[in-house]
Formats: sequence, C-alpha cells, structure tokens
Amino acid sequence: MKKRISKRRATRRPGIGRLALFGVGLIGGSLALALKRKKAVGCVVGVGRSRANLLVARRLGIIDEIAADPAAAVKHADVVVIAVPLGQTAAAMAQIAPHLEAHTIVTDAGSTKRDVIAHARRYLGHAFARFVPAHPIAGTEKSGAGAAFASLFDGHKLIVTPEPATDPRAVKTVTTMWKLAGMHVISMPAADHDRVFALVSHLPHVLSFALVNQIAGYADASALFKHTGGGFRDSTRIAGSSPEMWRDVCLANRDALLAALDDYLGELERVRGMLEASDAQGLEQCFTAARDARARWLKPQ
Amino acid sequence: MKKRISKRRATRRPGIGRLALFGVGLIGGSLALALKRKKAVGCVVGVGRSRANLLVARRLGIIDEIAADPAAAVKHADVVVIAVPLGQTAAAMAQIAPHLEAHTIVTDAGSTKRDVIAHARRYLGHAFARFVPAHPIAGTEKSGAGAAFASLFDGHKLIVTPEPATDPRAVKTVTTMWKLAGMHVISMPAADHDRVFALVSHLPHVLSFALVNQIAGYADASALFKHTGGGFRDSTRIAGSSPEMWRDVCLANRDALLAALDDYLGELERVRGMLEASDAQGLEQCFTAARDARARWLKPQ
Repeated sequence: MKKRISKRRATRRPGIGRLALFGVGLIGGSLALALKRKKAVGCVVGVGRSRANLLVARRLGIIDEIAADPAAAVKHADVVVIAVPLGQTAAAMAQIAPHLEAHTIVTDAGSTKRDVIAHARRYLGHAFARFVPAHPIAGTEKSGAGAAFASLFDGHKLIVTPEPATDPRAVKTVTTMWKLAGMHVISMPAADHDRVFALVSHLPHVLSFALVNQIAGYADASALFKHTGGGFRDSTRIAGSSPEMWRDVCLANRDALLAALDDYLGELERVRGMLEASDAQGLEQCFTAARDARARWLKPQ
Repeated sequence: MKKRISKRRATRRPGIGRLALFGVGLIGGSLALALKRKKAVGCVVGVGRSRANLLVARRLGIIDEIAADPAAAVKHADVVVIAVPLGQTAAAMAQIAPHLEAHTIVTDAGSTKRDVIAHARRYLGHAFARFVPAHPIAGTEKSGAGAAFASLFDGHKLIVTPEPATDPRAVKTVTTMWKLAGMHVISMPAADHDRVFALVSHLPHVLSFALVNQIAGYADASALFKHTGGGFRDSTRIAGSSPEMWRDVCLANRDALLAALDDYLGELERVRGMLEASDAQGLEQCFTAARDARARWLKPQ
C-alpha cells in the first residue's frame, strides 16, 4: 500500500495543465519559461495589449497559443496569472470574472497587494476565495517578452498575502507553481508587504528616477553624464525601469510610499544640517553607521 | 640624425625612477601596481599611518620600501603622490615641503580640487609650481592596500586641474604617469571639477548612506534588509565606502555639495507633490524622462 502511494506520487505531474497568462512581459514570460524548463505546465495561452509582443512570445516558445479574447484565454484554465501593469489589474479581473470555471485559480504578480486585493474583492465575485495575491521579488530594469528568461526567479522570494477568505488549497497550488519556478515562498499580511516594499523597493526607484532627472535638468547635462562613474551608474540602474509600471506602483502604494519618502527627506535634512554646520564627527558617525548596517545585513549575494 | 633620435626615444624608459607614495590604500596601491605592470617605475617607497597596512603593501609587492619618515620618503623622489584621505592632505604637504628636491614633482589623487589647491598654495611654497592637482575617477567601495589591483584605472578618466602657476612640464610628467597606469586624461578648471563631482559622485554617495541609515533606523530593520532586492543593493553599494574618506570629501566640497543636495531635495519634493496629488500623468512623464535620459547618456559600459 505504502509503495503504491509512493509510486503514484513519483509519477504524478506536479504542474499545471493549462495556464492563462495575462501580460506576457518580463515577469509573466519568465514564469512560463521557468515552468516549461521543469516540464511543469502543459499549455500556456497568452493575452495582452500588444499583438507584436505576443507574436514575439510565441516565436520564443514562451507561450503556446495566443488567445482571441480574455474569455477564450481562461476557458479550461487551471491557473490564471495576471502579470499586467498594476493599473490594468482591475480591468483584467473584470474581463475574466464572468468566464472563470469553478476550479480555476487566479493569482497576480503585482508589486503592491492591498490595492490588488481590493480590486479582486470587487471584481472577482465568488472567485475571490480562489484568488491568491502574490508578488515575486525578482526583476530587471528591462521589460517585454523579449526580456524574459527562465532563471529570473531562481533563489528569489515570492511573497503571498492571503486573506482570511482565501482557500488554502488555492494558496497551495500557487505556491507550488512558484516553487517550481525556483522561488522561496514567504507569507505575510498585505499591509506589512506594502510597507516593506515601499521602503526597500518603491522608494529606491523614486530616488533613482529623481537623481537622473536632476542631472538631466542642468544645461551641461551631457558633460555631467560623461563624468559619471560606477557609483552613479549603480545608483541609477533602476531608473531604466518601466515608467508605466512604476507610475502604477507609486499610485497603488501611495500612502506607504509617501510615509517612506517623508522619512527619507527627514534623513537627508539631517545630513544636510551636519554638512552645513561642517560637523565632521556627525558625518563620519552617519557614514559609519550606514557602512556597518550594510556590512551586517546586506552580505554579498 | 633622425634615426638616432628615434632610437633614443625607443630605448628611453618613459617611467619614474623613484616614486614616493603617501597613503598606500586602494588608489595609491593600485597606481603602484599599474606602473609596475608596465615596468614604468623603478622604486616605490611608501609612507602611511598604519604600519600593518604598509607591511601588507610590501608583502604584496605594491611598495619596495617603507620610509622611516616623510623626509626620508621624498629624498631623491622624482614624483611624490599624495593619496591620503583629503583631511590629511594639508598635513602631508606641510611634512614634505621642507624636504622636496628642486626636481621633485608633487601630485595628489583627491576627490576635490579647490581645497587641495588652497592647501598646496599655503604649504608647498616654491614647490607649488611643481604641484599638479589630479583626480583619478576610479575606485571601489573597498579600502586599504589589500584592496589594490593593477587594472583599477584601465580605461577610466584622470582629471587634472592645473593652475596658471603650474609648470606645464610637471603636468606632462603626471599625465604621462597616469596614462601609463591606463587612464585617459582630461583637464578642466578646479571649480568646474568640484561642481561636476559634487553632482555625479559626492551627492549619490550621500543619498546612498542616507537610504541605508533610514532602513537601519526602523525597529524591524533586520526583516526589511532581508526583503531588499537587486535594486536596493545596487543603489546602496557605495554606502560601503570609507566613512572617513567621504566625511573629508563632503567637508572639502561642502558648498558645491550643499547646492547639489538642495537641487535634489527640490527634485524629490516635486515628485512628492505629484504623488500626494495622485498625478498619474506627471509621475509617468517624470519617470519616462529619467529612463530616456539614462538610455541616451548612460550607455552600458
């Protein structure tokens, strides 16, 4: 008996028969490639705004089919992954809601979670219990299907933020899918997620965009950029990220980001005060604290 | 006749007989290694505060001799390179001034130039004409002789900021030395240098230190750092830089840095205003401008 169960486990495919992908960009496309790498998905059907991008995705083997419309995409789908920019999440949910089958699980890959959950509650109706809010913490500053690659998620973290109403079996399916794509899974409340990522991700992006814009705004911008070194380049790498995506993230997580930004402005004003007062000891303590914190917590990967 | 001159040129060693190095850290040490790689230096003698660091430097073949004192270090030196933290530059100049020989050329590697020139004018006396203010634009966040490597300067820029009183032959010797170490040489007025590097280097360092300190200041700092991704890590790599060096840079270039910081605070307040007003169009324009500027001016190296 024991043996039979083991055998059944060993031969059971842990994957997904049919996966519908809303948005075949860096994240959605890389998820498809990561699952295909593990033979953990049968058929991937893609939907998106740009026909050209979908054709690229099919040519690259990221998706197997291009759906004619959202209704066709979700038909017979075991899992629907919404990986569109945050600003289009609500519309995607509204489009699929009437066509979802009773067994279909829906998840997303948005960088904020409270607003996505609010949309899901509003638009998914009964299917809300089978919606698993998720955020894969991986990415590059590139976008589009052409930027996707199978190892994007390897060793990185997936945050899931299930609500009390969320079906644990749906959570299990989604976390299994992302584990197969290479991720470690962490669960936390949506509000905690939004504060944490306002601080460690959304704020640094805003700071990076602002720094590039400042330099670009001077009359001798071209000469200034020529003198930038590795420090400036590293600090502003993320200013190459998708403006549309980051507009949506900022708006979706506005309150937490404003709080993070105000704390940062306070920190900068503190350093400014030391500089104005030529406070050598204060500046050195400040820089030493930062260097030590970085050494303690940000060990080289 | 023509042939003889060519032959003489070909056999003449383009390098330096005796190089005195004040401060054998990342910059000074890497310069010594870069010149030795090209067999462009006879003997490198090192002086510094830390005997342990000098012993490491000698063991690693960075320096050939450890000088007993500054007077001994500069004796018979063809070139003296001052590569100490900016705050010690004036003291180093005061120590060597009485012992400099008539042919000895002095240069520095400081990240700011107006203050270094003011020190040189005050302390070097007649030798001021043979002082060449210079700034090699290269580095890592590491420090000490153990961090030095021969290729640090390859393909990077050296800025020289000679004064009207500077002997052009001294400039020639110093620029030749750094070219042998792998650098391209650019000349500009010291005030221009200080403004440019306040913007593209000193400001990003301050921003990076402040971001790490902000996160480190929260009660759940440890959890927050665990959730940082590649963007945060890149943005804060330079927060690992030497606190002492950056304290000195900030103080030496205080006025230009305050102006740069105030412009940045203005830029951040502008973005903050858009965020508070949920100005989607403004945010997207702002992020698009930054992404485009970066794509236009910061081509991948």
